[in-house]
Amino acid sequence: MANIKLYETIPVVLATEKYPVYIGQGLLSDEALFRSHVHGKSVLLVTNETIAPLYLATVQKAFSFIRCDVVVLPDGEAYKNQASLFALYDKLIDSYHHRDTTLVALGGGVIGDITGFAAATYQRGVAFLQFPTTLLSQVDASVGGKTAINHPRGKNMIGSFHQPNAVFIDIDTLATLPEREFRAGLAEILKYGLLMGGTFLDQLTHLLDRNILQASPEELSQLIANCCRIKAQFVQEDEREQGNRALLNLGHTFAHALETDTDYRRWLHGEAVAIGLYCAALLSHRLGYLSKDELNQVDTLLEKASLPRRIPKDRDAKRLQDQMLSDKKIQNNTLRFVVMRSLGECFLDDHITADVVLQVLKDAVE
Amino acid sequence: MANIKLYETIPVVLATEKYPVYIGQGLLSDEALFRSHVHGKSVLLVTNETIAPLYLATVQKAFSFIRCDVVVLPDGEAYKNQASLFALYDKLIDSYHHRDTTLVALGGGVIGDITGFAAATYQRGVAFLQFPTTLLSQVDASVGGKTAINHPRGKNMIGSFHQPNAVFIDIDTLATLPEREFRAGLAEILKYGLLMGGTFLDQLTHLLDRNILQASPEELSQLIANCCRIKAQFVQEDEREQGNRALLNLGHTFAHALETDTDYRRWLHGEAVAIGLYCAALLSHRLGYLSKDELNQVDTLLEKASLPRRIPKDRDAKRLQDQMLSDKKIQNNTLRFVVMRSLGECFLDDHITADVVLQVLKDAVE
Repeated sequence: MANIKLYETIPVVLATEKYPVYIGQGLLSDEALFRSHVHGKSVLLVTNETIAPLYLATVQKAFSFIRCDVVVLPDGEAYKNQASLFALYDKLIDSYHHRDTTLVALGGGVIGDITGFAAATYQRGVAFLQFPTTLLSQVDASVGGKTAINHPRGKNMIGSFHQPNAVFIDIDTLATLPEREFRAGLAEILKYGLLMGGTFLDQLTHLLDRNILQASPEELSQLIANCCRIKAQFVQEDEREQGNRALLNLGHTFAHALETDTDYRRWLHGEAVAIGLYCAALLSHRLGYLSKDELNQVDTLLEKASLPRRIPKDRDAKRLQDQMLSDKKIQNNTLRFVVMRSLGECFLDDHITADVVLQVLKDAVE
Repeated sequence: MANIKLYETIPVVLATEKYPVYIGQGLLSDEALFRSHVHGKSVLLVTNETIAPLYLATVQKAFSFIRCDVVVLPDGEAYKNQASLFALYDKLIDSYHHRDTTLVALGGGVIGDITGFAAATYQRGVAFLQFPTTLLSQVDASVGGKTAINHPRGKNMIGSFHQPNAVFIDIDTLATLPEREFRAGLAEILKYGLLMGGTFLDQLTHLLDRNILQASPEELSQLIANCCRIKAQFVQEDEREQGNRALLNLGHTFAHALETDTDYRRWLHGEAVAIGLYCAALLSHRLGYLSKDELNQVDTLLEKASLPRRIPKDRDAKRLQDQMLSDKKIQNNTLRFVVMRSLGECFLDDHITADVVLQVLKDAVE
């Protein structure tokens, strides 16, 4: 058995529920910890073809105290769809899973979102555990209860809020994460940096300067814990995204349009977010909120993380703009964006004209 | 414009939300009432091929103050499926409905369940109004927030809890309801009678003796209001069906097995419930809870309502039993049923053996 080491437990406290986010090493084999969060007689473990050869056996072994069925989905955002969702329902019904079952998501944001949505809607809601294995899902997607599948014409258009019963972040999984995936995760961490500014942004800049790929387990778990604390704070204050939680969508309206426009196949979500963060900064600058210096600072941070920052020439700005018109962040047909007044000070602007957005999309081309 | 008459407004008060159930005549054209419950800039009206020619124009006219798109689904339980659900999502996305849209269900329980589930899951939840047009949906399905679609291997297996923002019960719609549908609604009313006993059961028996088809609008609205009050009481005490709300499933485990076993095509839901109520009474008698006299009383009530009471010879008892093993009312693989100790006194029994159930299924054959 791997060496189990628990660094931190962050509580997420909501109006009618409460759950822990565990951060440590070797957690994927921590049977005792799992036992304390499974109350029925069956588990459905959902993972993908990339993660299965690496960690499925370990997790299955730790769940050997209970009947544990498995579904292995194809890997990638393109499979966060209706077909994968119904594959989960079919398995649950075929294997006689009842209301007391627990769904376990072992993988990145795609596996977490689709498994969470199946848990939200199987027999009107069953228990759900998150085992995020990518940096992106560890710092963002696994906490907060957003679950969804994509529609061919819009990302996350079908979904619901369904909080996990616990989140187990095993940073050992980052050792097998491809560098491209790791960098995609940095995009969401940079988003928190732009939202919070201050010490958090300074520490992050310092880590990027020092080559973040060589950070120690202690440094990584501290970084992830800080992100989870920020996320938890936003979620606790606004579980259903009626207000400030929407600030977490910084860069995401641009990112979703880019992803949908390329059938979810061209970029990792975090890469699209990186381009989206640059677009959001450019928009904020065009509107007179963000200085030229700060716009350049955002650009430099993305560059240090070796993330894409510009829209490729082959994309059509008008099509991307149209895509945004059907995006869910739009209220009453006026365009709503998260904009930056400075690094560390963001706000929601409900009155962005479609023309300004089109201009930004054109100017952000590489 | 039809004569608008509001008989009663029943409040449903839950932990984090509250909504009214309006009961009256001419409500389908009450634009002022609708206006007070629609806050965004668009509505999607969902109905079926049977209801559309009768009431769609009236309701559309009353919604002319807002952009109102329409989806007309085929009629019947067999269409409460994945294809219909995704037809709603497609329409919502194609027509640029955002998070501030309102879904309106105009029809019976099938339309209410599927529209409610679309509302629960479109962009993580949008507003939802119920306009039930069948007796069954007026007394049961439209109140309480259960939403679902069927899976080929199980009724309501995919769904979630999503309360409506208001329920508009226009009893004028009962004038066009086929007698068979009306009688199916009586099955759910009889269920309340068996759950509550006392004055409610006495009044119901009296109405059945007098030919309930000729009840006055005042009598009908009073009967429906009483049912909604009973339902609201159960839902208020146990919104998520952790406990006593499950008593409302009296007869339903049998009914769901019968419906699934016949691909949702042979019976109206209420007809299957009628057979299920007889089976539940027979089970209660076999277990020594219910006297022979009371079993006969249940049978007589169902007969007075001209409802089916026996399982047809062509059904296989073993297959029906297997179906129940995958039904959601089962906890920890022991069989759970609502049983009657007397008319007006029901309780949940978690320890029913599969053998007793099989015997009841065999003995309930016509």
